[in-house]
Amino acid sequence: MSTSRSWFCIPRGSHFSLANIPFGVISTATSQTPRVAVAIGDHALDLELFAANNGFAALSTIQPHQAVFSQPSLNAFAALGRPIHSVVRTYIQSVFAEDTPYPDVLKNNSTLQKQALLPLKDVTTHLPMKIGDYTDFFAGMRHAFNAGCLFRGPENALQPNYKHIPVGYHGRASSVVVSGTPIRRPNGQILLDPKAEKNIPTFTACRKLDIELELGAFVCKANKHGEPLPINEAHNSLFGLVLLNDWSARDIQAWEYVPLGPFNAKNFGTTISAWVVLADALEPFKTKGIENDTEILPYLREKEEKNVYDIRLQVDIKTNAGNSSTVAKVNGRHLLWSFPQMMAHHTITGCPLQTGDLLGSGTISGDTSAEFGSFLEQSEGGKTAVKLSGGEERKFLEDGDEITITGVCGGDDSALVGFGECVGRIEPALQL
Amino acid sequence: MSTSRSWFCIPRGSHFSLANIPFGVISTATSQTPRVAVAIGDHALDLELFAANNGFAALSTIQPHQAVFSQPSLNAFAALGRPIHSVVRTYIQSVFAEDTPYPDVLKNNSTLQKQALLPLKDVTTHLPMKIGDYTDFFAGMRHAFNAGCLFRGPENALQPNYKHIPVGYHGRASSVVVSGTPIRRPNGQILLDPKAEKNIPTFTACRKLDIELELGAFVCKANKHGEPLPINEAHNSLFGLVLLNDWSARDIQAWEYVPLGPFNAKNFGTTISAWVVLADALEPFKTKGIENDTEILPYLREKEEKNVYDIRLQVDIKTNAGNSSTVAKVNGRHLLWSFPQMMAHHTITGCPLQTGDLLGSGTISGDTSAEFGSFLEQSEGGKTAVKLSGGEERKFLEDGDEITITGVCGGDDSALVGFGECVGRIEPALQL
Ligand SMILES: [Ca+2]
Ligand SMILES: [Ca+2]
Ligand SMILES: [Mg+2]
Ligand SMILES: [Mg+2]
Ligand code: NI
Repeated sequence: MSTSRSWFCIPRGSHFSLANIPFGVISTATSQTPRVAVAIGDHALDLELFAANNGFAALSTIQPHQAVFSQPSLNAFAALGRPIHSVVRTYIQSVFAEDTPYPDVLKNNSTLQKQALLPLKDVTTHLPMKIGDYTDFFAGMRHAFNAGCLFRGPENALQPNYKHIPVGYHGRASSVVVSGTPIRRPNGQILLDPKAEKNIPTFTACRKLDIELELGAFVCKANKHGEPLPINEAHNSLFGLVLLNDWSARDIQAWEYVPLGPFNAKNFGTTISAWVVLADALEPFKTKGIENDTEILPYLREKEEKNVYDIRLQVDIKTNAGNSSTVAKVNGRHLLWSFPQMMAHHTITGCPLQTGDLLGSGTISGDTSAEFGSFLEQSEGGKTAVKLSGGEERKFLEDGDEITITGVCGGDDSALVGFGECVGRIEPALQL
Repeated sequence: MSTSRSWFCIPRGSHFSLANIPFGVISTATSQTPRVAVAIGDHALDLELFAANNGFAALSTIQPHQAVFSQPSLNAFAALGRPIHSVVRTYIQSVFAEDTPYPDVLKNNSTLQKQALLPLKDVTTHLPMKIGDYTDFFAGMRHAFNAGCLFRGPENALQPNYKHIPVGYHGRASSVVVSGTPIRRPNGQILLDPKAEKNIPTFTACRKLDIELELGAFVCKANKHGEPLPINEAHNSLFGLVLLNDWSARDIQAWEYVPLGPFNAKNFGTTISAWVVLADALEPFKTKGIENDTEILPYLREKEEKNVYDIRLQVDIKTNAGNSSTVAKVNGRHLLWSFPQMMAHHTITGCPLQTGDLLGSGTISGDTSAEFGSFLEQSEGGKTAVKLSGGEERKFLEDGDEITITGVCGGDDSALVGFGECVGRIEPALQL
């Protein structure tokens, strides 16, 4: 059985090839209750309908659990654990394979095809997981250095803890939204003149609105409160990945962030892509990350050398005037810490991770400015304008700007493992 | 109708007088499904049973909503909004009043009394709310100053933003536990010698385990994403208060907290008291907080001058050897910012607060060392031992130490509005 060819039409270049099978939550105009689906080519396969019509007839392991596909989030499916995710994904691949051993399930069942295979253009995608807690890490070392230079100068750019600890902070789970949700420019306190002797803040709409290109990871298997996840078991808690845009208000951040870290600068919205690419689907694209030249403590030492992913990430902007430009291209491997390392560190105190928790990688920036994953870095803190097509330029985001992050793995156009898009458009601030 | 005298025996000095009526979630050995109750004297009134037996016969407004009392959290009840909380509390007060207008409901109904009035000693209390997000503020100005002195020296103790912003950070919702839950000493990275030229962290059980005496506030009414809560409407989102112990690993915190704030130092556990004292019950104890000598921005200006609460807070320690000592006594009014100000600031960017979200006040410390709400402050960062009874002393917490926080409002022993206890005992660290 080949998993690269399907009887079903999957356009060349689709992020959702047979090699992928990402999971999401959908609804449609005629069936508005959110439920679980997988994306395949230009279509979503509605797994609630598929299950109800004996789609899983040949997979007995999932049968007692089929109610998970009728949920409004992937949490119940995720909680079944990676071995179950694996058999479900493999089974769906086999159902779509050209030489499927189960032709009666879907290939020869045009009624079910018509019911359960929905064109993506007719589908509304929802936040895929109910997120209990969201933690944003800072594992993009070049970003940490670039941002540190701008906030504190090059000599203190990387803090002494940086290579010992996957530095992170608790983010705001309630403001995570799915791709396509508009982002309203936040109001807040900023310092117009940070060098003035007396710091008097001004209340204003954010003037330095930015993006952060990140990967997000969802937790499937919880750990008990008080019991850390051992580093070499943490992969069992990794459900899958999404693209993540950690919208950031740089001027609000600069004024508020001492001594307890960013707060309002980040809590107005974080956008993730709609389809969770399972950890299994990403396994072939594992690669080495940034080498850590510092000896790390044993609880962070992974057996596996290839602990991050070779994902071609890209940030595009479309302005109100209609000009589209690519802002950054960077590979997902530019991380000093892996998600299992982040989970091992997060839980070393006994902190409980729960099914549905979201971890952000931190902004991913490569070595050259064309690879920098934020406007803060691209514009050197607002000193240099970034040139866009049509003669436009940007230091930070303007109202009406639409940011699209994409990410894709693999070199074979008929077997890509991609994330689709992570899109957000900036709406004007409220007049308060 | 008098609300200070009841036909039911409420011991003098009880925190749960007729003037209080706090809400919580309980189960019992014979009925293990968690459900909603109120505390009254030494008893809990099981509201699920009370409702099922026509206890709310004379309160038509609640009748369509009685399912909220069968929930395993107060969220559904909280979401009904403050006007409903008010009528339910007032009704329960009237049912218990000596001259109740509804004697048949409970006073003359000994069958229902036996079923629904459960001795607190036979009741298990659960986390009262399902907490989506937890934010810890830093509004105890004396604590902020004390801690700032220890971490950065007196000249930089209060950051320039402190009097302009209710500084806060996102905490870890999944590790909030109810009073009585043991707290395991966390392991983590610390710097044994912070002044060494090269910073090499050591992996160890926390050696500077501390408490933070705080008040917690629960959110009832959500705001829509993108729409701030106006300062003078924020009280409508204040469900009620609990005591909160923000356990803190000071040595882990000192090494990890730059530049993104405390993370593992706080995420191993936060304990709250079991009974939520409704905002209405606290209304008579409103008082002025610390005067802010700085002009604040309009979005933080409250009409009401009395915006914090006159609560007598106390921290006690009981050691493994059995010695009990009072560590601190401080009034809850020692806050620079009120909960409505925190909510207005939290949402000014459009960040959505949701029903069940928890806000911590920040550590409450008064002007003298006997009023300091943490061992960090009491021991001057570990320089001076705090004397306990029985000749014991502490700089930070030892294994087996049990910390009890109490809080109570009012001067009349028969009409106290108290929080009960917020208790946690330290278990030894895991050997890793
Ligand atoms: Ca980030
Ligand atoms: Ca605190
Ligand atoms: Mg972030
Ligand atoms: Mg805290
Ligand atoms: Ni109603």
